Amino acid sequence: MIRGRPLEFDPQQALDAAVEVFWSKGYEATSMNDLLGAMALSKSSLYQTFGGKRQLFLRCLGRYQERFSAEMRGALQSAPSGLRFISGVFENVANTAEKCEGAKGCLVANSASEFGQRDMGLSKSVGRGLQGMGQIFIEALQRAQREGDLSTKADVNVLANYLVGAMTGLRTMIKAGLSKVEARSMVPVILNSIR
Amino acid sequence: MIRGRPLEFDPQQALDAAVEVFWSKGYEATSMNDLLGAMALSKSSLYQTFGGKRQLFLRCLGRYQERFSAEMRGALQSAPSGLRFISGVFENVANTAEKCEGAKGCLVANSASEFGQRDMGLSKSVGRGLQGMGQIFIEALQRAQREGDLSTKADVNVLANYLVGAMTGLRTMIKAGLSKVEARSMVPVILNSIR
Repeated sequence: MIRGRPLEFDPQQALDAAVEVFWSKGYEATSMNDLLGAMALSKSSLYQTFGGKRQLFLRCLGRYQERFSAEMRGALQSAPSGLRFISGVFENVANTAEKCEGAKGCLVANSASEFGQRDMGLSKSVGRGLQGMGQIFIEALQRAQREGDLSTKADVNVLANYLVGAMTGLRTMIKAGLSKVEARSMVPVILNSIR
Repeated sequence: MIRGRPLEFDPQQALDAAVEVFWSKGYEATSMNDLLGAMALSKSSLYQTFGGKRQLFLRCLGRYQERFSAEMRGALQSAPSGLRFISGVFENVANTAEKCEGAKGCLVANSASEFGQRDMGLSKSVGRGLQGMGQIFIEALQRAQREGDLSTKADVNVLANYLVGAMTGLRTMIKAGLSKVEARSMVPVILNSIR
């Protein structure tokens, strides 16, 4: 089998580096030079492997969602209950206040805000990301129903949308400088609605 | 009194035009040409009157908040009750789903997401915007306490932060393409927490 010159870099590692840049700076504010520096690639390698900036961004969104979903699913499996998983997610987010991590927000939520419906290709991908978060909340809420912590009459799809919205809002406020005390005080109020 | 040549345009009207551009496109994606076209100004008039793009954006954020606060205060005064004002605000936001208005989101929330803590000058101004929304919710919640619809023990500051977060989240999800049916179904869940 004849193949081209083998890649001299790890594409997954380069992709993770690009995720960090887009996550910190947003899509528009990220320059090609920012990406080349972080990924330690030449312009031609970047174009050959990932296509242009937009293509690379779509790959990054996918990668971020993959990592995020795997992390959340693992946390749900090891959580003592469905409800405890949900409260843990919000407590963890609230604890990112006043930290670099909190200042970055969530790449999916940031992108939802940055693009909206302006670029349909990108917004479809962002929409899938929000649905991915929602899917995990649906699984947690169904578990809470099986565990008797949530009425079996509750509409888990609506509650999951509510939780995605609450998380998106909390992360945006933390990004805008909400203190940790304020962020933590919001968590029980957010959870009130699903009890 | 000797003065320069009088302005040949209405600065308030030009500012409103610039608000629309930043609101639809975001800060980074807005070019100087977008602004000059929408404001019907020459580059030199724009610089003379408003300074550069960043200065103009700060003026736009201020103008947007002014308009938003005046509108909300008027709605609160004419609402039949504090709680009805709050539910009305969320119903109105949910009804922007699947509309151009919804696709734009909220300029303050968009900017919170776009800048985070990256540009302290801008993020201070964005933080003030979120506080402005919170202040109106505080007034509505205090009215609800006087009207007997909310426990006088409730911490209106925490509840107001919760409502700002819920609104920010809802608007971001609508921007990302949430349907009107889904958006409307979230409103009673959001309000559950303050009852």
